[in-house]
Amino acid sequence: MESKASLGVTIVGCGTVGGGAATLLTRDREILAARIAPALELRHVVDVNFANARRLGLDEKLLSTDLDRAISDPAVGVVVELVGGTTFARRVIEQALRAGKHVVTANKALLAHHGAELYALARANGVCIAFEASCAGGVPILRALCDGLIANRIDALYGIVNGTCNYILTQMTDRGQSYADALADAQRDGLAEADPTLDVAGTDSAHKLAILAALAFGRRVDFEKIPVAGIDSLELCDLRYGRELGYVVKLLAIAQRRGRGVSLRVCPSFISLEHPLAWVSGPFNAVSVYGHATGHTMYYGRGAGSLPTASAVVADIASVAMGVAPRLFENLRLWPDLAAPAEQLPPVETRSRYYLRVMAEDRPGVFARIAEVLGRHEISISSVLQHEAPENAQAFGVPVVITTHSACDGAVQQALVEVDALDVIKAPSVRIGIVDEHPEQF
Amino acid sequence: MESKASLGVTIVGCGTVGGGAATLLTRDREILAARIAPALELRHVVDVNFANARRLGLDEKLLSTDLDRAISDPAVGVVVELVGGTTFARRVIEQALRAGKHVVTANKALLAHHGAELYALARANGVCIAFEASCAGGVPILRALCDGLIANRIDALYGIVNGTCNYILTQMTDRGQSYADALADAQRDGLAEADPTLDVAGTDSAHKLAILAALAFGRRVDFEKIPVAGIDSLELCDLRYGRELGYVVKLLAIAQRRGRGVSLRVCPSFISLEHPLAWVSGPFNAVSVYGHATGHTMYYGRGAGSLPTASAVVADIASVAMGVAPRLFENLRLWPDLAAPAEQLPPVETRSRYYLRVMAEDRPGVFARIAEVLGRHEISISSVLQHEAPENAQAFGVPVVITTHSACDGAVQQALVEVDALDVIKAPSVRIGIVDEHPEQF
Repeated sequence: MESKASLGVTIVGCGTVGGGAATLLTRDREILAARIAPALELRHVVDVNFANARRLGLDEKLLSTDLDRAISDPAVGVVVELVGGTTFARRVIEQALRAGKHVVTANKALLAHHGAELYALARANGVCIAFEASCAGGVPILRALCDGLIANRIDALYGIVNGTCNYILTQMTDRGQSYADALADAQRDGLAEADPTLDVAGTDSAHKLAILAALAFGRRVDFEKIPVAGIDSLELCDLRYGRELGYVVKLLAIAQRRGRGVSLRVCPSFISLEHPLAWVSGPFNAVSVYGHATGHTMYYGRGAGSLPTASAVVADIASVAMGVAPRLFENLRLWPDLAAPAEQLPPVETRSRYYLRVMAEDRPGVFARIAEVLGRHEISISSVLQHEAPENAQAFGVPVVITTHSACDGAVQQALVEVDALDVIKAPSVRIGIVDEHPEQF
Repeated sequence: MESKASLGVTIVGCGTVGGGAATLLTRDREILAARIAPALELRHVVDVNFANARRLGLDEKLLSTDLDRAISDPAVGVVVELVGGTTFARRVIEQALRAGKHVVTANKALLAHHGAELYALARANGVCIAFEASCAGGVPILRALCDGLIANRIDALYGIVNGTCNYILTQMTDRGQSYADALADAQRDGLAEADPTLDVAGTDSAHKLAILAALAFGRRVDFEKIPVAGIDSLELCDLRYGRELGYVVKLLAIAQRRGRGVSLRVCPSFISLEHPLAWVSGPFNAVSVYGHATGHTMYYGRGAGSLPTASAVVADIASVAMGVAPRLFENLRLWPDLAAPAEQLPPVETRSRYYLRVMAEDRPGVFARIAEVLGRHEISISSVLQHEAPENAQAFGVPVVITTHSACDGAVQQALVEVDALDVIKAPSVRIGIVDEHPEQF
């Protein structure tokens, strides 16, 4: 295929991303032709509804409802799956691979759950799967992990990989909006779905983390074992107290090498205002990667949207056309179908510093009782912040904000259960992990 | 070569970067073996002085002074030039290419001046040149331009690509150090050379800009036509006034598409504190790239140092081994030996907003005379900042800080010549460009 003058392309799914990819391949074909050979020839756009395709002015001759014909067309070398979901999309990909076609996809949910099986199927059929668009939209983060940073043992990765959540958190932080108000604004501006659950509950970030961590560590990741917390229960007061302490809250996808195992999690996290990730605001995404040779590198850009994501899709098509993606698929040892399973540490073994907010009665001796519980669980206090009692202190208690030194998540959870059982505690305690600058090791 | 089980490597030059690359290929060979195939086999380290090689504990059997033998060794597929400079290094590269060996290099000066000729020589010999390490050290920015962003028409690129300058500017900004003190500290900490001219005068940044702009725009760049200003004449007071206005100064390498031409320059620039590049501090590098599809993406990391730069060198060696670099060299149309010359706009046609500091007598009517000169040159004033007269105002005048709307550099230069000739002006005026957030176009 690589020696041919052009690569035929079938796009399945003409929604936001599919429409964007078709636009880049047709409206902007001169841009591509000036930049790479072979030519990329869009031959079929398969969907059941062509409202978006017509809005974009795609050539009617490209539009087709005949999936079988669009996949089996001998002039087609790559099938681009942009349907989303894990059922029909999976059938499309499997059919394409069995027909000996390379596959390009942005489907993070499918790859997080079934990546290893699909990669193995591709390998068995002598083709490859490329999926740059599955993580962080237009940011070429997978290429960094698989190519630019290949000489590194990756020690940790911290990602802001969901633009909806980052937009909401930025509104809460910068404008003092409540979670509900910020979500409503995001929905109004098209930055959040009508049903935002997949985003705000952290699932989408976890899908991306599974893909990123697998390539960073060269290990097969079990998605089901990734602990996930979303932003939907965050309270504005904690963002404010965090800010006083020099932190900003971000929904982070975290992957850390811990001895022979790996620690993976998605959770709202406080990060120092000194860390570059703290600056990533609005719908932007960024991923910080710590390699043993490079130290800290970071990759920043739009994590969603039609053309930014389509940019990654078309880069993958171009990579297939140039013969680059097939060679990476053949020669890298990072792919989950070739890799050993990761030893994923149980969530309770996560180690971190913590921000704790305890709602306590405002009278002598209370803090000593809280501190006693923490001490008994080997949790060392780093700082305490207590404001003047608010008006409703009688009913809800006064907020006592405690930051801890590095502690075990299981111990912190258990300690908070015991703290909350004290008769001087008026409301459930809050705990948020604090992510420190990862040490660079040269 | 790609089908073989291993790729033999010769490194020429065992200094900071060469020593780092040899370390990654030997001490860390297990890391590489777990991540890619074929194996990378270091066979020769050529130098005339092995003090660094011995300090690093490299195997004596690798060390050689026989360049011809190390290049002609039939088991060697790639020669890594890490000598630096443009004379002997060029001979090494030409000899390697003529011997049919792929070349990896970090030599920005050589590529900025003679890249097109060397790429053509490589092409004539059926091999490739890879040079990720030439720009921004461990940050895979060339891969982003050549691969991850290939579906984009690149509209602009703004780079902080010299760690020495960024460290000095950060010290001046954050600690209020003078340029001379910050430079002395950088030299003491090994972050600046004993003769820092190449860095602080902006030449090193211009070398990198020539390489980056050529790949971003797919045009051959004439290095000699890039206007270059360094940081060595910056005064602390301007950094302070800029900060009051919401700007921080960075030495920026700037490449902008302007109609059919391109505008290239290296100069100290004010950038809004809201822009991600403003956060890049200390010795770190970052490059912001604006693509027509992705909008803004940014790449951040250590731009120098032994292992960070060696990470990029070894990534290129791995890319050659996997057959990726040769395919990019063959199929991309961006390489300067294939590309048309860029229409580089003359420096005076650069358009920008400007920060101007005029040292004027503190008496009525003075500002009107300055404003009259600016207006006559079609320079529109955006804001004015004038502080209480300092003690030495009688001798040096009072600083009047003016920001302008977008104006032509030639007009601003000419206007300042006329302003400085006024009898009410006590000292030469200062002008610094202001870089606004580049518009994203979707």
